[in-house]
Amino acid sequence: MPKISIRSKDIKPSPIRKLASYAAAAEKRGTKVYYLNIGQPDILTPEVAMKKVAKANIPILTYLPSKGKLSYRKKLVEYYSKHDIQLDTDDILVSTGASEGIFLAFLSCLDKGDEIIVPEPFYANYHGFAVMAGAKIKPITTTIKDNFALPKISHFEKLINKNTKAILLCNPNNPTGCMYSKKDLEAIGKLVKKYDLFLIVDEVYREFCYGDIPFHSVLQIKGLKKHAILIDSISKRFSACGARIGCVATRNKEVHASMLKYAQLRLSAPYMGQVLAEAALDLPGKYLKGVRTKYERRRAVLIERLEDMPNVKSYIPQGAFYNFVELPIDDSDLFCQWLLEEFEYEGQTLMLSPGTGFYATEGLGKKEVRIAYVLNIVDLNLAMDCLEIALEEYPGRTTKNKGKKHSKKS
Amino acid sequence: MPKISIRSKDIKPSPIRKLASYAAAAEKRGTKVYYLNIGQPDILTPEVAMKKVAKANIPILTYLPSKGKLSYRKKLVEYYSKHDIQLDTDDILVSTGASEGIFLAFLSCLDKGDEIIVPEPFYANYHGFAVMAGAKIKPITTTIKDNFALPKISHFEKLINKNTKAILLCNPNNPTGCMYSKKDLEAIGKLVKKYDLFLIVDEVYREFCYGDIPFHSVLQIKGLKKHAILIDSISKRFSACGARIGCVATRNKEVHASMLKYAQLRLSAPYMGQVLAEAALDLPGKYLKGVRTKYERRRAVLIERLEDMPNVKSYIPQGAFYNFVELPIDDSDLFCQWLLEEFEYEGQTLMLSPGTGFYATEGLGKKEVRIAYVLNIVDLNLAMDCLEIALEEYPGRTTKNKGKKHSKKS
Repeated sequence: MPKISIRSKDIKPSPIRKLASYAAAAEKRGTKVYYLNIGQPDILTPEVAMKKVAKANIPILTYLPSKGKLSYRKKLVEYYSKHDIQLDTDDILVSTGASEGIFLAFLSCLDKGDEIIVPEPFYANYHGFAVMAGAKIKPITTTIKDNFALPKISHFEKLINKNTKAILLCNPNNPTGCMYSKKDLEAIGKLVKKYDLFLIVDEVYREFCYGDIPFHSVLQIKGLKKHAILIDSISKRFSACGARIGCVATRNKEVHASMLKYAQLRLSAPYMGQVLAEAALDLPGKYLKGVRTKYERRRAVLIERLEDMPNVKSYIPQGAFYNFVELPIDDSDLFCQWLLEEFEYEGQTLMLSPGTGFYATEGLGKKEVRIAYVLNIVDLNLAMDCLEIALEEYPGRTTKNKGKKHSKKS
Repeated sequence: MPKISIRSKDIKPSPIRKLASYAAAAEKRGTKVYYLNIGQPDILTPEVAMKKVAKANIPILTYLPSKGKLSYRKKLVEYYSKHDIQLDTDDILVSTGASEGIFLAFLSCLDKGDEIIVPEPFYANYHGFAVMAGAKIKPITTTIKDNFALPKISHFEKLINKNTKAILLCNPNNPTGCMYSKKDLEAIGKLVKKYDLFLIVDEVYREFCYGDIPFHSVLQIKGLKKHAILIDSISKRFSACGARIGCVATRNKEVHASMLKYAQLRLSAPYMGQVLAEAALDLPGKYLKGVRTKYERRRAVLIERLEDMPNVKSYIPQGAFYNFVELPIDDSDLFCQWLLEEFEYEGQTLMLSPGTGFYATEGLGKKEVRIAYVLNIVDLNLAMDCLEIALEEYPGRTTKNKGKKHSKKS
């Protein structure tokens, strides 16, 4: 019998999706499951954009240019220009989701044996894309104690060696919700220039910022023309994950040309998704403002509820729609599975992402979970009722519940 | 300045697309270009399927399961069952086009240094996907003299060594239009069992067979449960290249599980494309019969016209919609560029794919071009008028034109 590749054994199954079978079983038993484990917003895809696709009257669904539909790239140039980023259509490559964007950037920048530094906890799939490119992620740990702030530059510097080729940031961060300031980015910018590294920044949550700090893109940092690569996507922004449309923007012509060669292999990104994306960019500014307000309210509810739970270490995320929380539990994998397999409260339970899947360093994240606040406030509150009770009942809890009684029924 | 990956230098720009800038320049000069260089059919995407997408009323364009929409996979099971292939929904993984399907199969079967045997000329992008997986294509040459028939098994055997992991076939073949018989597949099947190799067969043109030989799928060959991997796509079948929907079917659970891990990294294939694909499978049998008849007529026209051209060695392809033709020219790359840069006949010219791009063996294909008969008969005839005149005028022609006069104006 022929053997599968060794590489395949290095790819871990998705930590976000691995509990799916337990969730399915819970639903089969009749338990209502609140899905806070995945970044799948419950907000409707803008109807006007969906209608544009329906009315596009495309006679032949042809391949589009491998680089992306020109009219869409022009719209993207306008979009970034409004955010103080001046680009040319030839700086942009439309990708099949941000996922492909990351992979294209990795393929173009990294060879077998190369290393890429990534602050952990990080979006788990980065690991898989690194394996596919033959490269290795060198994690640099951030902690809830420090509000997941970027480690000092000297800490980064300690990790840099002759194999280091790039630094990857996610800003605002998935899974922590942390936002990096202009100062942070400038410091990292200096570092990548000093050591001749690429700086890849995943900015798919760039429109979801709630604090007073203005968002700063890597492409706004001066002097990084050859270094900076921005990854973006419409999935979260326009609640269109299934469109599979993202993009990679860089002013480094060589990187762009290299990515294009890989993009030509897969011919083109989806046609209908690009029509949708183009229409979505025409939405008035108040659309995204409305979406942001929605998430901000959810964030407020989530934080309030978490602060109310004894021995839960919560943190106030400034961006994205995740919170990375420390719970009084022995093992986040067991806890998340237990929530689906054994727990229910009034016929309901919730699904969370175990923290362990977001760390490259073995042993970290055992007390942490990622909560995606992608549900409406009513459901979010019901899910938090479940979590509150669950933390009281969970046999593997690590602290006695000496806090106040929960107030879920009020 | 940071350097791009070494891998990127091994990826050749698409031979099918590399002449694009010359074509654009020709159009800018006002010359009408007939595009026979790319497998982009001119047949309309079935309106009823497009309407299904328009009327699907999808409130949120969510991620779909990484494996593909269950209802679509059920339809695929029915489709293959009608073609005497019994599968389970869990044997099928919906991919973002056949391109991704090939790449997922390569990632799952091949490691760095592994070899995969592919009859040449072959679809050029196989090379790129092999580079991305770190593997090497070992070409086995087929020739127009032998009607591009599969080489003898003993020839294959000579290429097999300890690094050989798989054989890849494209059936019906792109670029030659050759079809492999049941006997051919059984012989190769025996071989892959003997040496414990995977047998990957790209069957995206499986519905386009024109001869008397019935098409035979690799999944119909007995005893290959662990070896056979089928690649498929709706792009050509339903004239929906831009939907980006393909699939990989295999009964090897380990390969499927491995491919699924990579598929989870990219989250899901496009939502709207899967809705379209599902609707397309509901089309009555006469739809594909009609499409096939159209291509059959075009093939007849193409062959007749080519046979009429002096010193053109044409061959009768039994499947797909390509013909791989030998021309009396010095260099197919120069000729195809000359067609776009310097030639025109009554304000028109045509674009072809140089044969060289389809060979891994250096130096082959210099007299050959791939002609995709994807245009209607009127346009195809006009394009052939151009080719006929062009072959007379081309300064690099290798034979004196001693044949009869062309009849383009009759």
